[in-house]
Amino acid sequence: MFKNILIIGCGMIGSSILRGAINQKLCRTVYVFEKNVKYQTQIKKINKKIILIKKIDKKIMNMDLVVISTPMSEYQKIINKLNANLSKKTLITDVGSTRGNVAKLIKEKLSKKLNWIMSHPIAGSEVSGPKYGSKNLFKNKWCILIKSNKNKVLENKLSKFWKKLGSKVLFMKEQEHDKIFSVTSHLPHLIAYNLIKTAQDFQKINKKNIIKYSAGGLRDFSRIAASNEIMWRDIFFNNSKNMTKIIDLFIKNLKNFKVDISKKRNSLMLDKLKKSKKVREQILLLKQDISKPDFGREN
Amino acid sequence: MFKNILIIGCGMIGSSILRGAINQKLCRTVYVFEKNVKYQTQIKKINKKIILIKKIDKKIMNMDLVVISTPMSEYQKIINKLNANLSKKTLITDVGSTRGNVAKLIKEKLSKKLNWIMSHPIAGSEVSGPKYGSKNLFKNKWCILIKSNKNKVLENKLSKFWKKLGSKVLFMKEQEHDKIFSVTSHLPHLIAYNLIKTAQDFQKINKKNIIKYSAGGLRDFSRIAASNEIMWRDIFFNNSKNMTKIIDLFIKNLKNFKVDISKKRNSLMLDKLKKSKKVREQILLLKQDISKPDFGREN
Repeated sequence: MFKNILIIGCGMIGSSILRGAINQKLCRTVYVFEKNVKYQTQIKKINKKIILIKKIDKKIMNMDLVVISTPMSEYQKIINKLNANLSKKTLITDVGSTRGNVAKLIKEKLSKKLNWIMSHPIAGSEVSGPKYGSKNLFKNKWCILIKSNKNKVLENKLSKFWKKLGSKVLFMKEQEHDKIFSVTSHLPHLIAYNLIKTAQDFQKINKKNIIKYSAGGLRDFSRIAASNEIMWRDIFFNNSKNMTKIIDLFIKNLKNFKVDISKKRNSLMLDKLKKSKKVREQILLLKQDISKPDFGREN
Repeated sequence: MFKNILIIGCGMIGSSILRGAINQKLCRTVYVFEKNVKYQTQIKKINKKIILIKKIDKKIMNMDLVVISTPMSEYQKIINKLNANLSKKTLITDVGSTRGNVAKLIKEKLSKKLNWIMSHPIAGSEVSGPKYGSKNLFKNKWCILIKSNKNKVLENKLSKFWKKLGSKVLFMKEQEHDKIFSVTSHLPHLIAYNLIKTAQDFQKINKKNIIKYSAGGLRDFSRIAASNEIMWRDIFFNNSKNMTKIIDLFIKNLKNFKVDISKKRNSLMLDKLKKSKKVREQILLLKQDISKPDFGREN
């Protein structure tokens, strides 16, 4: 499909693209630019086809596809390198979790001759690093591509690439994307972080170690709140307008729950608790999760 | 260990006690009082040693152990039956998730001659009903017993019973229990319900179906928010003082996060996101969860 692919930033997501592309024979050679020395050692072990490069310079001119999978706070520096070294024949994409900010960056900073179509594969976990990558990470997962209104041929090519990695591809506008994922992904993560912060504050105030009783629910949130802090700072900051709106709605609802509890508003409470089952039913129907009950995970 | 055990309310928890007691040969006969007809059919299939009773009356006088595993809102009615039909030789326990309210109920309503020592096994999941029960549900899980200052012999007997089911037993005062679990269990559940409510409100306001993108985080919360509504209403209402306090702390922290995000307070934000990893490390160290990354569950 491509002769040469360059992956810039090869952590969990980048190395999963790398593994998938090699496994599906989507390219002849994969070049990797990764600054983390520990990661470099892990990447070398994956496949002999991989060539690690030390610099983003003229050598990258022959790339057919460039995939940026660094934290978004690195993009500005990377764009400068791409402007200096790429031509219009290269298809550029990235895997960032917010899109409005990157659309702006592309418009303002990327050379007009270059072609960047944004991707957002909805896949991941709380761990970081290439050793956690998997060729099957994107299998049956959504990958959102952002409409470019620029180059249909490249759009189709990128869509095909993700489909070969196993994704279900969907096109969206960047504003729509950021709004939807502020609710389905960014808020849940912030809430998990905030719950852990609250538990830590409680421990300090009460001088009690409560962690050993975390199996009652806290445990599951702690996993989500162990996600990469650089990545999530970038997401929260870059989607700040949608975030503040949805936080306000969340707080309004939580205050209502507080009143329900303190006034023991029985039927209102039962009604609300019952209704949330509907979301679960939809999620299972859409095969976003399995129905097998979760009693905690065991070795 | 016991000749006759009676289980009042035989859903997921009750049937797990039943299965464990039979498997560990902790009793000769198990009697079950369960009103739900569908549940009755499921219970009959578990073991031939089980005798379903239709009424709580004089027949129960010979019980050595009575385990109440109904929602807590049923306790008042059950206490009246116990007062009329039991003697001091029977050990009574229950498995409710809040303890202050039940301590009060016991003090005010239970006949002085009867012996009730409260239990709270920290085990469960989002599903309900005896078909989900397991003889191993309590294995390596905490079971909190509440100090009764009344009958050491019975306390030791109950402790031994839970240990035979696989639990690690710990004694606590009811106030301490309710405070700790408001943070490690009750708040996480309320937060999950509140997140799902917020997502539903967002869908209504924006006329968008966002559920199919739930794999980014919402999915995990939807599972928790599918828990039994009667049980959780009872918990929230019965622990209302601790709940309102911890909700206030949670909202205060979330408002701070909102300011961090809108003002892009970089180092403060990174510091907070990083610190939550410490809780995760403790949880893994204490073997409350496994370190295997979670990429979503598959069949």
